[in-house]
Amino acid sequence: MSIRIGILGYGNLGRGVECAVKQNPDMELAAVFTRRNPEDVKCLTETAKVCNVSEAEAWKDKIDVMIMCGGSATDLPEQTPKYAKLFNVVDSFDTHARIPEHFANVDAAAKESGHVGIISVGWDPGMFSLNRMYANAVLPEGNDYTFWGKGVSQGHSDAIRRIEGVKDAKQYTIPVDSALESVRKGENPELSTRQKHTRECFVVLEDGADAVKVEEEIKTMPNYFADYDTTVHFISEEELKEQHSGIPHGGFVLRSGVTGWNKEHKHLIEYNLKLDSNPEFTSSVIVAYARAAYRLHKEGQTGGKTVFDIAPAYLSAKTGEELRATML
Amino acid sequence: MSIRIGILGYGNLGRGVECAVKQNPDMELAAVFTRRNPEDVKCLTETAKVCNVSEAEAWKDKIDVMIMCGGSATDLPEQTPKYAKLFNVVDSFDTHARIPEHFANVDAAAKESGHVGIISVGWDPGMFSLNRMYANAVLPEGNDYTFWGKGVSQGHSDAIRRIEGVKDAKQYTIPVDSALESVRKGENPELSTRQKHTRECFVVLEDGADAVKVEEEIKTMPNYFADYDTTVHFISEEELKEQHSGIPHGGFVLRSGVTGWNKEHKHLIEYNLKLDSNPEFTSSVIVAYARAAYRLHKEGQTGGKTVFDIAPAYLSAKTGEELRATML
Repeated sequence: MSIRIGILGYGNLGRGVECAVKQNPDMELAAVFTRRNPEDVKCLTETAKVCNVSEAEAWKDKIDVMIMCGGSATDLPEQTPKYAKLFNVVDSFDTHARIPEHFANVDAAAKESGHVGIISVGWDPGMFSLNRMYANAVLPEGNDYTFWGKGVSQGHSDAIRRIEGVKDAKQYTIPVDSALESVRKGENPELSTRQKHTRECFVVLEDGADAVKVEEEIKTMPNYFADYDTTVHFISEEELKEQHSGIPHGGFVLRSGVTGWNKEHKHLIEYNLKLDSNPEFTSSVIVAYARAAYRLHKEGQTGGKTVFDIAPAYLSAKTGEELRATML
Repeated sequence: MSIRIGILGYGNLGRGVECAVKQNPDMELAAVFTRRNPEDVKCLTETAKVCNVSEAEAWKDKIDVMIMCGGSATDLPEQTPKYAKLFNVVDSFDTHARIPEHFANVDAAAKESGHVGIISVGWDPGMFSLNRMYANAVLPEGNDYTFWGKGVSQGHSDAIRRIEGVKDAKQYTIPVDSALESVRKGENPELSTRQKHTRECFVVLEDGADAVKVEEEIKTMPNYFADYDTTVHFISEEELKEQHSGIPHGGFVLRSGVTGWNKEHKHLIEYNLKLDSNPEFTSSVIVAYARAAYRLHKEGQTGGKTVFDIAPAYLSAKTGEELRATML
């Protein structure tokens, strides 16, 4: 029998989950839950139902894993614990500073109801976290580096869009090549924010807006841009649509460490991603962890989990024998 | 209380384990077991005992995890199941084709005696296997690529040393840059053996040996060199010692896959290692898994395990809370 998946929230991430479920023959999409009027939402999977989120409870026994596709700012802190009372859940909560609190809430709800709740799944947090952790366990003495990009930062794009006179905008985060190369050479550089990433902005102005003023406002924006070397390009709405409509991303996790009785040998561990679609890759990771949630629950496990707590084999559709014979 | 480690076999790998234990404050090296006369073997750790392998059974309750540092060809297939009857064990068995059989033997012995036996730990098999598996679970539709090097292959160096007229030799396996770049571009090339790696040999001849004949014999050696573009350099014994005494290695694991309803988005996952010392890095991975073996045993788990079966958090000295707060 297939693993029956539910999607709660049908934006970019929810659609990515739908596509990922299609690539995994041991799963099926049972239903999509939306806050909108279900009649206004059409999903791609013919066999799946579109329901209002208020109907979710009725699906309690018809969904094995509910995938939470809301945002980290306000949706997930409330939704993931709430739905963990009814379902096994997986979310992609990515506000790093609030993870301990979110974990505690999901853990309590999931334990009480006998479900599994896996939080902060995706690539960062997610695959990047795993690689940081494995690399630290293997090389206890060393330095960690994470670079993001080249890719679109939704948060920074939104911040530009809020500036008066801006009609639309896309912001790319770009790792600084020379910094990355220095890390790869084992030079263990101390890197400031400015030395690690640059920011490139493509901005469409409203008619009559003051370009000089907008550029100044972007470049001096605290937290978002002030600490970075930022480039601003003003382009037409057509160009933005044609050249910058994708949501690519990626990045690099490196650990540079030493071994030997006198720490005489250097080692470099690097993990990197180049992603055409940030939400679809995130969704693909989530769906693999949905398989894990299903299996852990079947084994009688309950409570909050992260990628650190789950043995890799749970993610794969292959059996232990198959994995040992083909991938070890 | 520290995790008490034993080392069985005190060659390059055993010495690497000793160095790695020193880097992990929650562990201590209790004893080294050797087939040689213990009085002829001096280990670096002042507090550790050197014993003959015949004394191992007497350490049954004084060692938490025995690390098996013999070779895969003849030592480990016999030793790992044998010592799994007495201890929790970790080995680095790397004969990929014989892993299923070795796993079955270790699993049976460990289950019977109530121990944990983790096999095939290191970087390949080991960290590379993990990365192949995670990447396949996340991107079910795609192609896998593994490149090794640049690094010293002991097996190929030994093969050259067995040729008549050869006094000493070192062989480097080198990935072909253009092949690696093609994979990184998402071109999904089909690569022959020759297209993936080249082999570079540094050879010291015996006095009066025929260089032309030796070179011919190397380049046409079946399995080892015949399918590769091989370069042979004849050098002096001094140069070999000065320039080629290290044991560096490394390599690349890549998965190139697609997502999206119509498979319209490409993704590339890459993991790579640059290692100054192959045995010390392998040992560092093994020692992290020794921590896992100790903890799994404490929880009451028994039997054979591989890297696929062990949740990442077991490898780290940090608690779940610490990991979530600092690495997720």
